[in-house]
Amino acid sequence: MTSELAFIAALRALADNPAARGLNDDCAVLDFGGEALVLTHDMMAAGVHFLPDQDPADVAWKLVATNLSDLAAKGAEPVGVLLGYQLGESAQDARFIAGLREALHHYRAPLLGGDTVGGDGPKVLGLTAFGRATHRPVPSRSGAQAGDGVWLTGAVGGAMVGLEALRSGHGESARYRRPEARLAEGIALAPQVTAMMDVSDGLLLDALRMARASGVCLALASKAVPLACPEDRRAEALRWGDDYELLFTLPRGATPAAPATCIGEVRDAPAGTLLVDGTPPDTGEKLGFEHH
Amino acid sequence: MTSELAFIAALRALADNPAARGLNDDCAVLDFGGEALVLTHDMMAAGVHFLPDQDPADVAWKLVATNLSDLAAKGAEPVGVLLGYQLGESAQDARFIAGLREALHHYRAPLLGGDTVGGDGPKVLGLTAFGRATHRPVPSRSGAQAGDGVWLTGAVGGAMVGLEALRSGHGESARYRRPEARLAEGIALAPQVTAMMDVSDGLLLDALRMARASGVCLALASKAVPLACPEDRRAEALRWGDDYELLFTLPRGATPAAPATCIGEVRDAPAGTLLVDGTPPDTGEKLGFEHH
Repeated sequence: MTSELAFIAALRALADNPAARGLNDDCAVLDFGGEALVLTHDMMAAGVHFLPDQDPADVAWKLVATNLSDLAAKGAEPVGVLLGYQLGESAQDARFIAGLREALHHYRAPLLGGDTVGGDGPKVLGLTAFGRATHRPVPSRSGAQAGDGVWLTGAVGGAMVGLEALRSGHGESARYRRPEARLAEGIALAPQVTAMMDVSDGLLLDALRMARASGVCLALASKAVPLACPEDRRAEALRWGDDYELLFTLPRGATPAAPATCIGEVRDAPAGTLLVDGTPPDTGEKLGFEHH
Repeated sequence: MTSELAFIAALRALADNPAARGLNDDCAVLDFGGEALVLTHDMMAAGVHFLPDQDPADVAWKLVATNLSDLAAKGAEPVGVLLGYQLGESAQDARFIAGLREALHHYRAPLLGGDTVGGDGPKVLGLTAFGRATHRPVPSRSGAQAGDGVWLTGAVGGAMVGLEALRSGHGESARYRRPEARLAEGIALAPQVTAMMDVSDGLLLDALRMARASGVCLALASKAVPLACPEDRRAEALRWGDDYELLFTLPRGATPAAPATCIGEVRDAPAGTLLVDGTPPDTGEKLGFEHH
């Protein structure tokens, strides 16, 4: 199989447009009618992004939440979604619709269109979400400045232990099954932040992406990161994805307009790097969920 | 497997929004920043919408063209597309990108974002296209009026014989492999038409859909329909899809602003019906490609 990174690189080369940053892990942002239109399309595949035997209602919820989380990082309010759905067994499809209804109601995002196909292979689902940015310039991951504080809404590790609970049948799995897109927080923070992104693939990996996009060093204090899992799982929790919190930077001394924790600071060098407790993280370990 | 129609009906019930007509075979149209934003999402699955061994460059072209054809029927100019792609074998993926590049260049539609997933099953692809309507009110399929003429751009049957040529290895297959979205025609016609839609699932089936949406009778003269196939295939050509011409209605006496052929007239009754040469088409035969 083609490496996903290679394919994305080829697509980026093809897309001779600065708005084409909306590939894979970010939104497209463009002017439409004098407003900032924010668009994202995320796919989920059975066996990769969800368990093949998982309740389709939870799959639907997660499909909506992951896309709206991308909008949240832009401080955008949802305008609507388009669904791409691969039909399956009737009872499963009915559960999917039930979860979709819940998620769209929860996030006040209307279903405006979409398409369905048949198919017997592992399910592949897609959702396009689009919204209206509430603040311009629209936050991006490339604006972090030396001297800024690094902040995180909520906690990490909840999806990790939630997935384990779901697999084992013991314990609370909601943080994995029903992630929360931080839309209200994103809208509140957008006018303040110098950079913002959602943490979908793991805090360390996404922090490194922000450091690279901004050309700065993000220096994190690992102990400062709030956990939604036992303390002895801290190292893993920093590398686990699916928590969908917002990672953002604020000028020194600023107080965030939404509940968040300061987890580090931005330095000017080494540019494009991440430090955890003063040292680069062990590259022998994955920093998060890499797309291959 | 769930009936596609049943699933779409459930989605429609869920989507408590008039813009939700963008399900399956139409666009969503909504006001954004004082302009009309037009969105559509079409999926294609191997073995259903394309041959599993077909050149992926042609599959990419068709994925773009089918979505832009939906925009064409709204008189919209493309603003951009988001791709949902299931990765496969490297050489095939490279061909897909080559065809995508050609199609996006041809239609001047930038790639603005998207996502990729792995997966071993039959390929499922999705594309979201969005555009700006050039004329308001935006044409719909529901505005045909008794007394209007029924018109068609181009000819039908070309995709039918093109698919046969592709399967047999003899003859010209371009009309199947590389359909043309009638964007310029749609923009020219939008200020004139009382109703417009693209013919994706077969002329008779789509004409019946327009009759139902408009609450009128479309009376077609089958011999008037231009063919891109031999005359003895006429009956099949009227029921075959994938030609992506525009079907529209104009007030009596109006001359269309793009090349087109008058193929019938709109009557007030029986409402929601189709007549071909004065009689309802044989319901024992399919009128076109039905979604199941």
